[in-house]
Amino acid sequence: MSNIKWIAVDWGTSNLRIWAMGSNSDVLDEIISNNGMSGLKPDEFEPLLVSLIAPWMSGQRLPIVVCGMVGSRQGWMEAPYETVPTKPASRTVNVKTKDPRLDVRIIAGIQQQDPADVMRGEETQIAGYLNDKPKFTGLLCLPGTHSKWANVVDGEITHFQTVLTGELFDMLSTKSVLRHSMLGWDDQVFSKAVANSFASPETLLTGLFGVRANDLLNKDNTGQSNLSGMIIGTELAALKSLWEDQQTVVIGAGELARLYSIALTNVGGNVALEDVTMVTLSGLKSVYKDLFQ
Amino acid sequence: MSNIKWIAVDWGTSNLRIWAMGSNSDVLDEIISNNGMSGLKPDEFEPLLVSLIAPWMSGQRLPIVVCGMVGSRQGWMEAPYETVPTKPASRTVNVKTKDPRLDVRIIAGIQQQDPADVMRGEETQIAGYLNDKPKFTGLLCLPGTHSKWANVVDGEITHFQTVLTGELFDMLSTKSVLRHSMLGWDDQVFSKAVANSFASPETLLTGLFGVRANDLLNKDNTGQSNLSGMIIGTELAALKSLWEDQQTVVIGAGELARLYSIALTNVGGNVALEDVTMVTLSGLKSVYKDLFQ
Repeated sequence: MSNIKWIAVDWGTSNLRIWAMGSNSDVLDEIISNNGMSGLKPDEFEPLLVSLIAPWMSGQRLPIVVCGMVGSRQGWMEAPYETVPTKPASRTVNVKTKDPRLDVRIIAGIQQQDPADVMRGEETQIAGYLNDKPKFTGLLCLPGTHSKWANVVDGEITHFQTVLTGELFDMLSTKSVLRHSMLGWDDQVFSKAVANSFASPETLLTGLFGVRANDLLNKDNTGQSNLSGMIIGTELAALKSLWEDQQTVVIGAGELARLYSIALTNVGGNVALEDVTMVTLSGLKSVYKDLFQ
Repeated sequence: MSNIKWIAVDWGTSNLRIWAMGSNSDVLDEIISNNGMSGLKPDEFEPLLVSLIAPWMSGQRLPIVVCGMVGSRQGWMEAPYETVPTKPASRTVNVKTKDPRLDVRIIAGIQQQDPADVMRGEETQIAGYLNDKPKFTGLLCLPGTHSKWANVVDGEITHFQTVLTGELFDMLSTKSVLRHSMLGWDDQVFSKAVANSFASPETLLTGLFGVRANDLLNKDNTGQSNLSGMIIGTELAALKSLWEDQQTVVIGAGELARLYSIALTNVGGNVALEDVTMVTLSGLKSVYKDLFQ
């Protein structure tokens, strides 16, 4: 495919997504793989990438712009963090490759010293969101394994907060004693659990075992909705000062973005939804443009 | 060993402990095994027990008094729950065995309808604590994988609360992203984390990722103490109304009992410590006495 001008890559802990980009940064082809960085050693990234994009490669040198955990110390090559306040995705590192046809740039993550926090990948999504609104001021929420809440002022990230929401839910629902009580889904139970936990966030720990006990004693099969609502409701209570006086732009996809949207609305938040794949691609495009055009 | 009169068994989810008891309920021998009930099918309990206690058996029929998760639906044989308010360990079920030398009695757990909660095993420990104080009124705390807090009035359990403390700590420290930051221990960091989480229990979720970020950015190696203090401090905040106006009798062993004791004292609680093995054995003895003497 000779009309491929560059390649965009989102390489996270568990997943890998690659796009073949045309001259107007239009998507010509896409690869989705579960070869996340956590299963790879540093010298395995290049051969894997080359094998996947081989059908797209001609003799010419291709710009490859990469975001995600691949830039961590355990990844392909460490891309040192930028520090808040900063414009997101404004620095990259060059990766020295064996294959001379690759010109790989990994986008740096962002760190915050007080309180200590880090992100890798979300900075590119935020940059993508800011592409059309370079002077944006407001609050972004990126739900996920490690949900991120970011304050943006005039197009710069000034402060952010990571919450272990997704990882905690996954662990509790698949590895704890609660895993036996995770059948079914009920939006009303979810909303009620959000409301209760939002009102009494100190009860998260004491409420968790109730999910199991309610199933054992009352054949309650709404455990999954209840657990999810408890965790998200507690998160929203802890971060109330962030979202209570402004709109929250939720950048996500699928069920989790829907749940954050329901939950935030239920407790009085004002929500706008943005598709995460669109903004990721938009962020990678803007970095490509800065570096190569 | 012909002087063995009966056998006491504490058969939990992950561990099994068996004592050979003499005529004055003195301990003649002990077996500790990791054959917990979670790894066994219903028809595997009897052969395993027989193989372990074979050296203790003569021709005569031996009373065997058992407590723990072995009495759950997934265990050897279900021992239906007693319901609060109740004297603990006051009902057992007979297990029909193939080997006629065994006279097995499993002690019933306890349920509470509102809020839904269950215990299996702790009722025997509580019964053991009450042996010397049959009219006890007060608060018992049994730290563990699933910590239990029980209100006792006049020797009856009136209300109890399970907290997933131990399981949550184990999951987060061995399976989550925090597992990379669990080196070292520092009592002062633990106490500080208890105090902070006790003062702001809504921050548990938002604080968890900070343990990892502090290690990444500041080479902080006190993550384990910090995580443990955050979880226990949040638990104590949620249950303040239980312990603030009375002494808490912590029935436990080793490090976890020590930590609960430090934490409770730090936030203004009044603590007495009891050894859990002593009270378990004492509870099994009292059930033996009720049934066979």
